[in-house]
Amino acid sequence: MGSFLIRDARSNDMAALLNLIQELADFEKEPDAVELNVEDLQRDGFGQHPKFHAFVAEANDNIVGAALVYSRYSTWKGPILHLEDLIVSEKMRSRGIGDSLLNAVVNYGYALGVKRISWEVLDWNQSAIDFYEKKGARVMRDWDLVQLDEKGIANFIKNTKKNDSA
Amino acid sequence: MGSFLIRDARSNDMAALLNLIQELADFEKEPDAVELNVEDLQRDGFGQHPKFHAFVAEANDNIVGAALVYSRYSTWKGPILHLEDLIVSEKMRSRGIGDSLLNAVVNYGYALGVKRISWEVLDWNQSAIDFYEKKGARVMRDWDLVQLDEKGIANFIKNTKKNDSA
Repeated sequence: MGSFLIRDARSNDMAALLNLIQELADFEKEPDAVELNVEDLQRDGFGQHPKFHAFVAEANDNIVGAALVYSRYSTWKGPILHLEDLIVSEKMRSRGIGDSLLNAVVNYGYALGVKRISWEVLDWNQSAIDFYEKKGARVMRDWDLVQLDEKGIANFIKNTKKNDSA
Repeated sequence: MGSFLIRDARSNDMAALLNLIQELADFEKEPDAVELNVEDLQRDGFGQHPKFHAFVAEANDNIVGAALVYSRYSTWKGPILHLEDLIVSEKMRSRGIGDSLLNAVVNYGYALGVKRISWEVLDWNQSAIDFYEKKGARVMRDWDLVQLDEKGIANFIKNTKKNDSA
């Protein structure tokens, strides 16, 4: 099996984290979606007001998995921890690394006293859904995600101004 | 029609905001889901590190609508603004209040320079879906939300400890 350890990510892990993020984008059939670079991750994760917290799984001095979380807020329950990505490099699957990363995330949320841990899953990723449900999570199939992307934001602003001056 | 104005929420708007949150929970068929109280919203929204930013719609000195947002982080795009709730009191619908609240949110996100504005919608709420799509947003039906609630977190921790000592 080989051993691994889970620890908080450091700034100099961000190149390895970006490789894992790209690997996940490939798996999710969006290979061109990653626009962040290493410097973005270093600035956003390790500045004075970090925008996320990351855990990495290390095996033989290599980063082979990661989990990235940040805070959200429920107007029903209060503070929430959101798991944005849980990634294990494909060649390192089935060794309990994903399990250990999820453990780290849930313990982190428990220590923060959050009312919920949330994340998102592709509805065709049945092995992930089975894994999460076995852990006691609830998969809510009646909610859809809505996204207004950067171009959509710019168009929205342009159209609003047009209406204002009409 | 009557006129209204959109402005940033103040701490003393939180009782009115909580009423709107409860009204939305009733609409979403979860009348008992709201566990927050007014003091929670005041502490979380107006402390040294606010967990959310809110806009309210005011008509005749009454709060008749609200939008609540906070930051998220995409490992593909970077900083994101998330719209947690967009609420217009039922008796005040169809006057453009929801439209104006969404304008305020998109302008706020544009000023922050976020790469995306995200939110969630119930898949049976077709009028909301139509409204959002007309605004240029994309409704992603192939993602499911996953939630580990407070009890689930406690169970998860308990089970992990049991396995550790086994």
